[in-house]
Amino acid sequence: MASGPSRKRADYMHFTPIQTRWSDNDVYAHVNNVVYYSFFDTVVNQYLIAEGALDIERSDVIGLVVETGCRYFEPLAFPDALEGALRVARIGNSSVHYELGIFKAGADGPAAEGRFVHVYVDRASRKPTSLPPPLRAALEKIAI
Amino acid sequence: MASGPSRKRADYMHFTPIQTRWSDNDVYAHVNNVVYYSFFDTVVNQYLIAEGALDIERSDVIGLVVETGCRYFEPLAFPDALEGALRVARIGNSSVHYELGIFKAGADGPAAEGRFVHVYVDRASRKPTSLPPPLRAALEKIAI
Amino acid sequence: MASGPSRKRADYMHFTPIQTRWSDNDVYAHVNNVVYYSFFDTVVNQYLIAEGALDIERSDVIGLVVETGCRYFEPLAFPDALEGALRVARIGNSSVHYELGIFKAGADGPAAEGRFVHVYVDRASRKPTSLPPPLRAALEKIAI
Amino acid sequence: MASGPSRKRADYMHFTPIQTRWSDNDVYAHVNNVVYYSFFDTVVNQYLIAEGALDIERSDVIGLVVETGCRYFEPLAFPDALEGALRVARIGNSSVHYELGIFKAGADGPAAEGRFVHVYVDRASRKPTSLPPPLRAALEKIAI
Repeated sequence: MASGPSRKRADYMHFTPIQTRWSDNDVYAHVNNVVYYSFFDTVVNQYLIAEGALDIERSDVIGLVVETGCRYFEPLAFPDALEGALRVARIGNSSVHYELGIFKAGADGPAAEGRFVHVYVDRASRKPTSLPPPLRAALEKIAI
Repeated sequence: MASGPSRKRADYMHFTPIQTRWSDNDVYAHVNNVVYYSFFDTVVNQYLIAEGALDIERSDVIGLVVETGCRYFEPLAFPDALEGALRVARIGNSSVHYELGIFKAGADGPAAEGRFVHVYVDRASRKPTSLPPPLRAALEKIAI
Repeated sequence: MASGPSRKRADYMHFTPIQTRWSDNDVYAHVNNVVYYSFFDTVVNQYLIAEGALDIERSDVIGLVVETGCRYFEPLAFPDALEGALRVARIGNSSVHYELGIFKAGADGPAAEGRFVHVYVDRASRKPTSLPPPLRAALEKIAI
Repeated sequence: MASGPSRKRADYMHFTPIQTRWSDNDVYAHVNNVVYYSFFDTVVNQYLIAEGALDIERSDVIGLVVETGCRYFEPLAFPDALEGALRVARIGNSSVHYELGIFKAGADGPAAEGRFVHVYVDRASRKPTSLPPPLRAALEKIAI
């Protein structure tokens, strides 16, 4: 698995439980590398919705994903109980850099860690737009 | 959505919480019809694992799915909190008929209900085999 | 696997190639039962789009799935090349009953067969609506 | 979308067609960021299988994914026809660094580009192992 330093539980600002599914395991009996990105999408958007900063069907601006990445430190497998951890590393005029960790429930070190960059655009024109103030406020609450 | 009678919460023997994910919503902003089957797979196998009746990597016999079906009564959407409900409708020599319901957390009527038929086979030969006694015992606990 | 009679290749009106993906195989090294429904969704909607009967983002009416089902006859596995086969079994005022087959490329008998029922609704109100004439025309081309 | 330089079609050694599926589009009507990683997994493993360098169920050594990443340049949507492009950037003793591009069929510039790092391990012990010669030969055919 990946080597090198990793962020620990204490480095994150927001946590949420993640359930695994039968379909998360691939033919090698572990959570497939692709599925971690589905966790990232879920953790980020769930946070924004809970904070009132995103309404999937009605928000005037939406976040398009322009870059993602993940390093995998140890295998996970359905039916493991997991936790997603989130922090905001950088807030730009129209972009947000998130950093995420996926932990076995209760573990100190991550099973994987990733990054996820949103650029906010107008829903109709898909042109970049400044982050709306309620979104910016939600991001600042979990910014490093 | 589907019409006709449906099973209610009180008709089921086993319940488990289900988290939705960002990817569950399709372009029409609701949980896609395919995803319910992923819930079914998860609810059934999670029950069997918790009961000690299935070890994904080591059990000598495994359940192959031979028939599935679902009727959809009302839309769901990420980030809804859901519950999966399970009962065993019929236990054969090598087969099991499960019935499932997907409920919004706390709702009395189902958002969807389905069926799921497993035939148990030898892992290596993939020939049908009698249900092992520990599996049969786990099934009888939730049989109608 | 499922027993009983099945429709053959000659029973269908429309065919389309289907590529498998790494993620289609589950821990038992075969295409997971859930994935067939993803094939069904794709075959139906691809046909409607190609016929000019559906514009995902702009059509005034959209098809909601109210019932699906599948019987599985033989295992498939990535990287198998497959074919999806489609016919329309019944056209109602606002509903369509599709029947589908999934074949190994070139095979006469199906690996799986399914059904898929759409009810058409107004995109905004989500109330049932009559099938628009261009959609009805596309369906009649492949109706039994 | 992502800015900065990108690899072009001529930078890749191996190409394969990719079909999109209904489920690839997310609620914003474009192929979801997660799905590109499913394309990567498919392109890499399909190449290895076609070259005789991987047997999913029987190979003594298997590739575990330790790092992945993707930059997204332009949106894609079902039912677009795509191409996956692959090259090997680095071959280590037990690791392989792949670089990938996802193109609209026939386009010169990529819709997305990614990287994908495999470490090869013994299937049973999951300890790193040297790349077997047939695998190494397959990799060298598409190495930069």
